[in-house]
Amino acid sequence: MCSVISRVKPVQRLVAQTLRLCASTEGSSYVVAQRRRFCPGVSYVVVPLRVDRRSYCSRMAMTRGLLFRQLFEAESCTYTYLLADTDTKEAVIIDPVLETIDRDLKLVEQLGLNLKVAVNTHCHADHITSTGLMKKRVVGLKSAISKFSGASADIHLSEGDKITFGRHSLVVRETPGHTDGCTTLVSGDQSMAFTGDALLIRGCGRTDFQQGCSTKLYESVHKKIFTLPDECLIYPAHDYLGQTVSTVGEERKFNPRLTKSMEEFVKIMSNLNLRKPAKIDIAVPANLVCGLHEV
Amino acid sequence: MCSVISRVKPVQRLVAQTLRLCASTEGSSYVVAQRRRFCPGVSYVVVPLRVDRRSYCSRMAMTRGLLFRQLFEAESCTYTYLLADTDTKEAVIIDPVLETIDRDLKLVEQLGLNLKVAVNTHCHADHITSTGLMKKRVVGLKSAISKFSGASADIHLSEGDKITFGRHSLVVRETPGHTDGCTTLVSGDQSMAFTGDALLIRGCGRTDFQQGCSTKLYESVHKKIFTLPDECLIYPAHDYLGQTVSTVGEERKFNPRLTKSMEEFVKIMSNLNLRKPAKIDIAVPANLVCGLHEV
Repeated sequence: MCSVISRVKPVQRLVAQTLRLCASTEGSSYVVAQRRRFCPGVSYVVVPLRVDRRSYCSRMAMTRGLLFRQLFEAESCTYTYLLADTDTKEAVIIDPVLETIDRDLKLVEQLGLNLKVAVNTHCHADHITSTGLMKKRVVGLKSAISKFSGASADIHLSEGDKITFGRHSLVVRETPGHTDGCTTLVSGDQSMAFTGDALLIRGCGRTDFQQGCSTKLYESVHKKIFTLPDECLIYPAHDYLGQTVSTVGEERKFNPRLTKSMEEFVKIMSNLNLRKPAKIDIAVPANLVCGLHEV
Repeated sequence: MCSVISRVKPVQRLVAQTLRLCASTEGSSYVVAQRRRFCPGVSYVVVPLRVDRRSYCSRMAMTRGLLFRQLFEAESCTYTYLLADTDTKEAVIIDPVLETIDRDLKLVEQLGLNLKVAVNTHCHADHITSTGLMKKRVVGLKSAISKFSGASADIHLSEGDKITFGRHSLVVRETPGHTDGCTTLVSGDQSMAFTGDALLIRGCGRTDFQQGCSTKLYESVHKKIFTLPDECLIYPAHDYLGQTVSTVGEERKFNPRLTKSMEEFVKIMSNLNLRKPAKIDIAVPANLVCGLHEV
């Protein structure tokens, strides 16, 4: 196993879950709302929420010593994210795109970063990843993707795995539904979530190909993303309207699909009638081998 | 004068300048470098810089209670910025674009913000501002632009003017060169600078029309932007390569034009041979009247 990846053991995970539950109970309006929803008629003393004052505060990288860059690839409207420890210079790149590899590696070089892991949130259908080519150009770089993606990589990720870079980390949450191998990467302090195509800003990934399943996606988002703190920033893999970031609190409140019941959500997703992605027939086979197919 | 704008009096400005100088002397590698440049042979005891550890740390909105959103308009590759106080909900929008007014106002509404000022960093040549139309749709909204822009607006900005929203503020620095009326808006804590077209990521605005002047631009960037702290985030009005943010430290080091001498810079700018912006003949007259021309 790569040294930058650590598996969270069951006992640690239980402690983490308990802590998370405590934190959620104290800090999340969603938990209060869910309690009300499941126990109608039972009253709760609703104390002012500690997070409320910062609910919609974009507080990216309040963690000191974290370098963070959001980069955009215009053809597929894909966001690539670069994160690094400013002391150790260890860095992770999320969802890099073949067309922008030179831009991304130039930035890595200028900032003096030591790129350790290139991780894909899932096997993309709309663009070819630069992961494979990046591995050829960056000594020691490891590729990572969900073990359920069916794609080859140096590291196959599972629920609770931790990708560490210096004093920082990203924790893997499995969020299938758009594909079976979709993951959401949550920063160690839960201030940022890289949601891939599971949750987009006021939207979500489609579910009509590549093992897509609307009920799975609905459950993933509600159980694995909407349980994060309200102020956690949502950084998706795509945006088509020029939006760059949202928060868990906002999406819980304003996402036009995921605020609906599961039945309504499934109906919406069944009636999108989207065109097949232009690049799917070359992108998926390529991304199953780190993007190296026919490169 | 609009209540959200305050003029910094000369005596306050002098104190601020003195404080800035002290801060710069302590914290800025640029100041040390400049001293070396102007006093070759004179040695300085170079102590480790306090800001070094966070030089390239994207620390957007580390100021608590600040909401920050970066929004993109794809046709003109323009960035619009929304900033608000999360307590008072008072908000400011920078460089809003006509084509994306519905997206922007929907977000303002969803977040429950009270939009006080729509400010343009300059009279744009590549797109029509939505400021005028936004004023028609948002009660009490004031438009603002430099007094040297030649454009009509509710508020004409000068060096040192402060646009306040709740406990936060943006301070005006005049940075002419791309146009005579270009301003850079610096957050009160100097963690963010909205540079308009004066300084772009690894680039700068053109200087071949609309009172453009390369020597003025070079001086503006060096005196008014490069004197900000290394870690100050640069948010430009445009990016054409999918980059979203840079820092003063990075641009001082890597900007391919502004790291050159003034003579080299002028030469570079004289030989860009750029095409006339497609929309200039409709955008400039429209932006001189808050974008309302023929809307």
